[in-house]
Amino acid sequence: MGGFEGHLYPGLSLFFYGIYHARLVSRALICNSPVQYPPRHPWSKGRWARLQQIHYVGLLKILSACILVAQELHSIPGQFVLISKMYHQRDFMYRKQWQHLTLYVAFFLTGCIDLVSQNLLPQRCAVLEQGAQALGVFIFLPLMVSHMQDTEGVELQSHILLTQAVFLLTLVVTAELWAPNMPLIWMMKAFLYMITGSWLMQIGFMLYKPVSGYKWMDDDTNDIAFTTIFFCWHVAFSAILMIWIYGFSFLWYCYIFIHG
Amino acid sequence: MGGFEGHLYPGLSLFFYGIYHARLVSRALICNSPVQYPPRHPWSKGRWARLQQIHYVGLLKILSACILVAQELHSIPGQFVLISKMYHQRDFMYRKQWQHLTLYVAFFLTGCIDLVSQNLLPQRCAVLEQGAQALGVFIFLPLMVSHMQDTEGVELQSHILLTQAVFLLTLVVTAELWAPNMPLIWMMKAFLYMITGSWLMQIGFMLYKPVSGYKWMDDDTNDIAFTTIFFCWHVAFSAILMIWIYGFSFLWYCYIFIHG
Amino acid sequence: MGGFEGHLYPGLSLFFYGIYHARLVSRALICNSPVQYPPRHPWSKGRWARLQQIHYVGLLKILSACILVAQELHSIPGQFVLISKMYHQRDFMYRKQWQHLTLYVAFFLTGCIDLVSQNLLPQRCAVLEQGAQALGVFIFLPLMVSHMQDTEGVELQSHILLTQAVFLLTLVVTAELWAPNMPLIWMMKAFLYMITGSWLMQIGFMLYKPVSGYKWMDDDTNDIAFTTIFFCWHVAFSAILMIWIYGFSFLWYCYIFIHG
Amino acid sequence: MGGFEGHLYPGLSLFFYGIYHARLVSRALICNSPVQYPPRHPWSKGRWARLQQIHYVGLLKILSACILVAQELHSIPGQFVLISKMYHQRDFMYRKQWQHLTLYVAFFLTGCIDLVSQNLLPQRCAVLEQGAQALGVFIFLPLMVSHMQDTEGVELQSHILLTQAVFLLTLVVTAELWAPNMPLIWMMKAFLYMITGSWLMQIGFMLYKPVSGYKWMDDDTNDIAFTTIFFCWHVAFSAILMIWIYGFSFLWYCYIFIHG
Repeated sequence: MGGFEGHLYPGLSLFFYGIYHARLVSRALICNSPVQYPPRHPWSKGRWARLQQIHYVGLLKILSACILVAQELHSIPGQFVLISKMYHQRDFMYRKQWQHLTLYVAFFLTGCIDLVSQNLLPQRCAVLEQGAQALGVFIFLPLMVSHMQDTEGVELQSHILLTQAVFLLTLVVTAELWAPNMPLIWMMKAFLYMITGSWLMQIGFMLYKPVSGYKWMDDDTNDIAFTTIFFCWHVAFSAILMIWIYGFSFLWYCYIFIHG
Repeated sequence: MGGFEGHLYPGLSLFFYGIYHARLVSRALICNSPVQYPPRHPWSKGRWARLQQIHYVGLLKILSACILVAQELHSIPGQFVLISKMYHQRDFMYRKQWQHLTLYVAFFLTGCIDLVSQNLLPQRCAVLEQGAQALGVFIFLPLMVSHMQDTEGVELQSHILLTQAVFLLTLVVTAELWAPNMPLIWMMKAFLYMITGSWLMQIGFMLYKPVSGYKWMDDDTNDIAFTTIFFCWHVAFSAILMIWIYGFSFLWYCYIFIHG
Repeated sequence: MGGFEGHLYPGLSLFFYGIYHARLVSRALICNSPVQYPPRHPWSKGRWARLQQIHYVGLLKILSACILVAQELHSIPGQFVLISKMYHQRDFMYRKQWQHLTLYVAFFLTGCIDLVSQNLLPQRCAVLEQGAQALGVFIFLPLMVSHMQDTEGVELQSHILLTQAVFLLTLVVTAELWAPNMPLIWMMKAFLYMITGSWLMQIGFMLYKPVSGYKWMDDDTNDIAFTTIFFCWHVAFSAILMIWIYGFSFLWYCYIFIHG
Repeated sequence: MGGFEGHLYPGLSLFFYGIYHARLVSRALICNSPVQYPPRHPWSKGRWARLQQIHYVGLLKILSACILVAQELHSIPGQFVLISKMYHQRDFMYRKQWQHLTLYVAFFLTGCIDLVSQNLLPQRCAVLEQGAQALGVFIFLPLMVSHMQDTEGVELQSHILLTQAVFLLTLVVTAELWAPNMPLIWMMKAFLYMITGSWLMQIGFMLYKPVSGYKWMDDDTNDIAFTTIFFCWHVAFSAILMIWIYGFSFLWYCYIFIHG
């Protein structure tokens, strides 16, 4: 996450994960199926049919975590160590990189648990998946707060807004543990994942590749105020996108899918 | 919202919206009808009868949003642009105006969704209306926080109190998504809309047209303390007003309406 | 509340109100009567029997509010005005006194509504009483926050702890609106009223009549730390007192009352 | 808690208490017994059989509280007094020690109430035990906040993280009062006790016996950032430990216990 790519890639992952959840909740609402995590069908005989039955979400999570870790390690200039003992004292090295790695490993573990629960266990264990997800977000939150330590101006403001979205996501994911089958909570989760992802991409553009070609200035009150205004536009944009996804799913399931 | 009118008009809108909700909840309590959003009747044949059946809340929201936008654009001295590129750098322009516009557009969208859901859809979709309202308030909150950025003294204190009322409103509107038909939540919503509106008007008077004729001083601890005291009086005044509205509705529905 | 008496009298009022609630909840738990506010019996014929049936809580609230207002007005040196216009500017006067008066009037109104609901209405309206109580505490909270404006050291720390207790009381009283008959919430309310009251008395002693005879020093970290320690002792003391009240009520209702 | 042992011993106590709760909740989940606090069996006749029936949790709490108090008193250089009156003023003495003692006495009382409720009362009173536990945690929280008063750097950061874990524990323990038999809340309680305990031990090592042999530096941003990273690793470690405990309990109760 050290540069433009480090904000764009995780942002894209979270954004697509949000869209995936928005599609899931739309299907559940349209088809009137209240269960978020449907039970797995028994395995088919054929090898190819079996491949089709695998739930790929966990695999995709693991894959994107691996790509992010690789991108992170690639951006380090020297050797990747935790502690260097030079000049008669010990120094922790690569603070931000270790924060990112901790985060990616947490999401990697989430993906592993998704994979195990959805494909290997005899029964899908929804509580385990939700608990892993909640744990990942709980680790996300203090890391984000610690991440903002020595930033200021536009960078600080944009990360504060991101942290607020993650905080709401934490609340929603915790609430999901209690009410696992509520479409409203599910929809909020999708909504907040989409905001977090799109805002993370926006941060990448704002801090490293400003669209206007001019750098954002940290000591300009206008720039700091417009950071919040743009965040509100992202919120509105995500809301409109969710209505689009619902409308498209409605068309798909009620007209194309049935007549097909 | 740049001056006296910019605080008075939105304050009046919110205040009347609160009174409208207080009247709705009083009628529901007195007539023992638990449903907040009654289903629409089938359209009558006659053109005039049809006009009477239209729910005008959405239209009024759109209208007031348009008036507020016009008043906002009218108060700008030069041309209304987002970015000006002068002297070899880019500058965001009209920070506060864009904050207000974002807000008004959010309420405009709320009005549109009310209009569509109440008059055009085959069935009134209460969740959609409440979701749009919650979204509008969620956009309101960070904008208010960002609005307080470089204010101080009496202006800061009065906006902090406004933000707290809006924060409670956000909680109540979010809670309404889960419990749509609870009179208590409905009543709190009306109460908080009334406080927000009347306090917004008070801010307009305090900052731009003080009743005593003397300006409020930012560096005077007395003035800052009395800002909070006046807010408490507004809270008590709104509570008494709600009891009046309930009493008047009681008289209307139990004596005049039935005997009429 | 300007001096020792101004902290002692309201503290005593709140403390006894807490004890009264603790006794009520103990009786409800022992006698297995789940209803917090029992319906009123029809009036007896005799004048004296009628006097016995009056619920005196509202009257006592009104009485104590009047005493507090009188004590407040008595402690003012000059004439009690809101605004003085001297030297060509306007000045708000008696900031702290108006804060206290606002508070006392809020509790006075609570008492009036208790009196009306318990003695004059044909049916006791529990929601109205609880709403008035919640409103009183909601006005209490911002006044306390504003009260701490220009204090420091021991005075600030003790008022922060008081504000925290009042904040929890606000939460509990708001929760009571939703679950009016839950003994747990009722007990917490009694507990928090007792802590608030006893701590208010402690503040009076600490700031104006220190038991040791030496003044507390604001710039001493020891004194500030011990403020928190003493608050924890008050919490523990209130908890033990509640167990005592429950035990005494148990003895009274199970042995003395039945055998009497 | 003044030195390394003062952090290690309470940390160990809390950690083992968390493991004990994790074992309890695992057994309840595997054996499908929803009741957290099972009713006591009638006393057996034999003396030794009676000893086996005693619930030792309360005794262990009392014992560990006594050890902690003894260790605390032993670490004081002079005489242990509350107030010393020298040089014509009064001084509170041993601030941190009184904070720790208040805390230990609160846990001692919790242990006493556990002992009374589980062994002496005719019926086990779960609400009383949970209330005592909630009270202990409620006293823990302001003491921790007051404890951080004049610390900085790594010590402050590590205590802030501890306070956050204790705050979540407070929420969970309060929620347990309302929903006493929910396995999810019980599991969260065990999880948070384990995090608090293991992090307390880590603080002891970090501040007094750093593993690397070099002192942590307060003015180094790297060290402060890695404090948060290590906390996240503790969170992940506790989560993995809970899955291990659950797996081990599963093996024990489903294979060894039944075949034994």
